[in-house]
Amino acid sequence: MATVLIAGGAGFLGRSMASQLLARGDRVVCVDNFITSHRSELTTLESNPMFTLLEQDICTPIEPNSSIDAVVNLASPASPIDYLKFPIETLRVGSLGVLNLLELARSQDAKFLLSSTSEIYGDPLEHPQVESYWGNVNPIGPRSVYDESKRFAEAATMAHRRTFGLDTRIARIFNTYGPGMRPNDGRVVSTFIRQALLGEELTMFGDGSQTRSFCYVDDLVRGLVSLLDADALLVAEPINLGNPDEFTVAELAALVLDLIDSSSTVVHLDLPENDPTRRRPDISRAKELLGWSPTVSLVDGLARTIEHMAATVL
Amino acid sequence: MATVLIAGGAGFLGRSMASQLLARGDRVVCVDNFITSHRSELTTLESNPMFTLLEQDICTPIEPNSSIDAVVNLASPASPIDYLKFPIETLRVGSLGVLNLLELARSQDAKFLLSSTSEIYGDPLEHPQVESYWGNVNPIGPRSVYDESKRFAEAATMAHRRTFGLDTRIARIFNTYGPGMRPNDGRVVSTFIRQALLGEELTMFGDGSQTRSFCYVDDLVRGLVSLLDADALLVAEPINLGNPDEFTVAELAALVLDLIDSSSTVVHLDLPENDPTRRRPDISRAKELLGWSPTVSLVDGLARTIEHMAATVL
Repeated sequence: MATVLIAGGAGFLGRSMASQLLARGDRVVCVDNFITSHRSELTTLESNPMFTLLEQDICTPIEPNSSIDAVVNLASPASPIDYLKFPIETLRVGSLGVLNLLELARSQDAKFLLSSTSEIYGDPLEHPQVESYWGNVNPIGPRSVYDESKRFAEAATMAHRRTFGLDTRIARIFNTYGPGMRPNDGRVVSTFIRQALLGEELTMFGDGSQTRSFCYVDDLVRGLVSLLDADALLVAEPINLGNPDEFTVAELAALVLDLIDSSSTVVHLDLPENDPTRRRPDISRAKELLGWSPTVSLVDGLARTIEHMAATVL
Repeated sequence: MATVLIAGGAGFLGRSMASQLLARGDRVVCVDNFITSHRSELTTLESNPMFTLLEQDICTPIEPNSSIDAVVNLASPASPIDYLKFPIETLRVGSLGVLNLLELARSQDAKFLLSSTSEIYGDPLEHPQVESYWGNVNPIGPRSVYDESKRFAEAATMAHRRTFGLDTRIARIFNTYGPGMRPNDGRVVSTFIRQALLGEELTMFGDGSQTRSFCYVDDLVRGLVSLLDADALLVAEPINLGNPDEFTVAELAALVLDLIDSSSTVVHLDLPENDPTRRRPDISRAKELLGWSPTVSLVDGLARTIEHMAATVL
């Protein structure tokens, strides 16, 4: 049994990770300031005596009441509509917040797991993206508040590993979806499902030929837990976690409309600035080092997500 | 007359900028924690009543005694030997420090000038580097503590411009040299000059075929002052400042040996990780928007630097 502090533990991935860790007997200390989540979403978790909540911003130093074995950083606005609404907070949590968590891990002699993102690859010039690819990010674009904060966080994490011998792990998380996403988080999966459920037009950016790879949340979090458990020496460098099955956004829309049996039509909007045209993880490293790969197909995952979201929006 | 706060004002560029601003009648508030500089280097500046010193780290909030018209950020370890010696400090000053200065500029309704760097282009795949190039930086390499901090700082600066309408300017500074460099700062110009003056072997990384562009400090700082003075609307985006004359490191060594009339030989060492192979600024934007271009040739600039450094090391 370990005690794991999850920063951003009230978010979509944080709650799922907390559940998986509690299910195997770990203690979870959740730190969240609820900037993009709600305490009400923690009701089930808070009924578990092994779960505790510290309501605070990680940009102020964290002082847990118990000793911590692992620090998992899932804190940040992560959806474009969120980080464009909270640009300064995103910059602060990705820099000062991460430095505070690294300092906490160091003082506790704990492992540190950073959730990084496929966004550090930007609009990639190599395809699929392997971890050795350095990325193609616009440092001054509107999205840079998130992308550059995550690149900074990776640099900070590696610096603590090099300087202090801290046990660090970095996951580069690709698009993830599933039950528990907010219907209005602005991500393409939740947006299409919500719109189709409500019989509204599906808003597609561009012609829908841009590709994405969608990983079901249970698969993704199982990967995060494997990374947390892995031998420290094996996972010194970042590891992609995501589903390598690539779909165009138009294919995703067709699948959602088919599963919901919706007659919604598709309306095309202008592409946002610096929207990546292709995104697909090479997960060879995760397969080899963690024995991990996703198992839930997009059709199955979408069906479960639709069922869950229907209960919320209808 | 304006009051300009210069963070990192005791550094190589900071002292030169302070001198140019004082010479035209501005007040200068220098903020420095002397992590890579020495207060003794400020003796001349401190004798000027228009110059004041705040000895502090910009990672703690800055509270100047007077109102400020412009905030210029030149604070950071900037030479590889410095930022590899102070990796955590470099990450902190480039994130938290920059956010503090941006907040100061906002609270004072002051202009903000960020000194960014050609390092944000990394090992560039485009040559010469124009400001629209997004760069090729290894986010997890040893140099990333500097490169990614500066990319983060650019993102933070642009976010404050977009969010608050702050008057921001970003200079991407290429290699700069001149009187006042530390003989042991590890940069190629100072290292070669020091070694040649002392009759030691010149230590060249790799075969010396990698190129650099060297800008004389007076030229560079004149560019910074022009950028600070420019019409805010013209300079919304980053501007390269550097000398577009490109030399191989081997050519630089030959020039130094010739100017010093030294019989030192050259010894070749392994290239450091992620050392850029080519670096040359496209300065069209600076020419057009600031009417700026360098005027001091490498031979003239080296001669002045050698004369100055000879007084220090011999």
